Amino acid sequence: METITIMDIAKICGVGVSTVSRAINNHPDINEETKNMILKVIKENNYIPNNSARNLKRSASKTIAVLIKGISNPFYNNMLKVFEKEIQNKKYSFLLHRVEEQEDEIDIALELEKEKRLKGIVFLGGFFSHSEEKLKQLQVPFVLSTIGVTEKIDKSEYSSVAVDDIKESYKIVDYLCKLGHKKIAIITPTPMDESIGKLRLQGYFKALEDNQIPFNQNLVRYMEENIDTDTYSMKYGYEVTKRLLESGDEFTAIYAISDSMAVGACKAIFEAGKHVPNDYSVAGFDGMDISFYYNPSITTIRQPVEAMAYETIRILFDIIHNKNSQENKIFPAELIIGQSTRQI
Amino acid sequence: METITIMDIAKICGVGVSTVSRAINNHPDINEETKNMILKVIKENNYIPNNSARNLKRSASKTIAVLIKGISNPFYNNMLKVFEKEIQNKKYSFLLHRVEEQEDEIDIALELEKEKRLKGIVFLGGFFSHSEEKLKQLQVPFVLSTIGVTEKIDKSEYSSVAVDDIKESYKIVDYLCKLGHKKIAIITPTPMDESIGKLRLQGYFKALEDNQIPFNQNLVRYMEENIDTDTYSMKYGYEVTKRLLESGDEFTAIYAISDSMAVGACKAIFEAGKHVPNDYSVAGFDGMDISFYYNPSITTIRQPVEAMAYETIRILFDIIHNKNSQENKIFPAELIIGQSTRQI
Repeated sequence: METITIMDIAKICGVGVSTVSRAINNHPDINEETKNMILKVIKENNYIPNNSARNLKRSASKTIAVLIKGISNPFYNNMLKVFEKEIQNKKYSFLLHRVEEQEDEIDIALELEKEKRLKGIVFLGGFFSHSEEKLKQLQVPFVLSTIGVTEKIDKSEYSSVAVDDIKESYKIVDYLCKLGHKKIAIITPTPMDESIGKLRLQGYFKALEDNQIPFNQNLVRYMEENIDTDTYSMKYGYEVTKRLLESGDEFTAIYAISDSMAVGACKAIFEAGKHVPNDYSVAGFDGMDISFYYNPSITTIRQPVEAMAYETIRILFDIIHNKNSQENKIFPAELIIGQSTRQI
Repeated sequence: METITIMDIAKICGVGVSTVSRAINNHPDINEETKNMILKVIKENNYIPNNSARNLKRSASKTIAVLIKGISNPFYNNMLKVFEKEIQNKKYSFLLHRVEEQEDEIDIALELEKEKRLKGIVFLGGFFSHSEEKLKQLQVPFVLSTIGVTEKIDKSEYSSVAVDDIKESYKIVDYLCKLGHKKIAIITPTPMDESIGKLRLQGYFKALEDNQIPFNQNLVRYMEENIDTDTYSMKYGYEVTKRLLESGDEFTAIYAISDSMAVGACKAIFEAGKHVPNDYSVAGFDGMDISFYYNPSITTIRQPVEAMAYETIRILFDIIHNKNSQENKIFPAELIIGQSTRQI
């Protein structure tokens, strides 16, 4: 049976949710008559107010930690929303911990395990190049979510949720090639960045090769300077594209490996007095909302972000409840054709 | 003295950060000679690797909770990044807890206080309409960050960081009026939404009044239907604007009270075959990155997001360390004139 909610009470009473909330909390800003009517309806319907506060009491100190690399990507924001909701639904607390690029996430996880009596860990984002031995030190269930993992680790040693970054990246670059583009610049993180960027770069190389397009090192672009700009951000795409345009290197298309960077690339092109896609085609990756709402809309690879987040939590709790051992799930992603790319 | 970082070691050794990380973690994927060279440099420079993992050991179980209403607004994402970094810097853990629209955040805070032995709380977003008595139940230091607070609560009873939403909203609507606009639609949350939206709406009313523009109820627009769309989102702005355009109600400008909604409004206008700002001017609020990177760039009110986040943590820790009592800080915001508005 569905529990009755504050929304149901508001509907029955013909008032807003905030008015019901005021009645429950004995707020001064409510007419006495209205309040009594609402409280009567609440009683009649056995509605238990402040449900989540009461549930907290039962939750003991069970905590799930999410360790995230690269918190600035809005892609993660959408996943965090689901994690947070699902973890709360299961009456666990949600601890968010950011891992710096140069930090070792497993060392941090090992410490958090001890300190916080964790019941589970989600590692979010980045690239895992740890040894199998290191991974085995983790005592609590964990899932690697949207993380690139070195092939040296046996898949039975860990659980994971991801798209096939090489294959999906190949798909969008191949699409640009089929549109006739032969000079395709790619905007990627710096080579020292340990992220899925390197997998997407591999997909780019392979698509060029299969389309018999000679590789041009000048078209692989990233920030050389050590300026304070988050990788994958709009600013990063903007700055790199500005330098690309100024360099005089010829290109007809830009593939930015995140939608945010693609937005920044478009802005740099507009500022140079050029048009998208008439002068340059631009493609992104991720399928964030902005790829639809931008002007022009941006051709991209849409990852099923929410489904991947739900599956991450499902797998984690299956392990916690001993329903399952390690599980590796690859989600398919979809090529979304926007207004930002054209045949040449 | 600045502590030496892994980046410094990488620079001295002439290798990437990931290579230094491999040397430290005894990773199989590194040349023995390179590893020994790096470890020697590390020793010579007294670099302590895995700094944050070691610091965790000393952190006991000191936790700061951030209770957030409306997690989907990217505005909060930028603040969370700062909170999280600063809280970790101070060797505290960062607990993120989402509060549903209909939930009572103080009840939730009271439970978390008990469960998690919190040292401090940041309430982020939304509108506070609790009684003073209720607020006094909170035992640990707290700061209300970017929250509207009812005037019935004495300011000495709480600490807060915010902009003056009424005044800043007035500023941008007054700017539209001075450009000659007399039919200015506003996109706001539903009337039952308890958020700063109601303050921004007040600023809109006041600016119209001071500019002798008669108020037209038909131009106050929000989602009537109960569809699953986050308030303040691009989709919300898009759906509301689509209905506004179809309604036939005349207007020359749209003021959306978040940049994301303004982006959605622009998209709906483009889809109707119209232009921004030639057919309609569009203004937003918040000053998010996208207001600069959108095409056209969007006229907005820029809140000093990062400064506000740092100040929130500064005030919270001043209270925790007994350096200070309650403090209320209003930040000025700035009108940023983009390409999305024009004189008529």
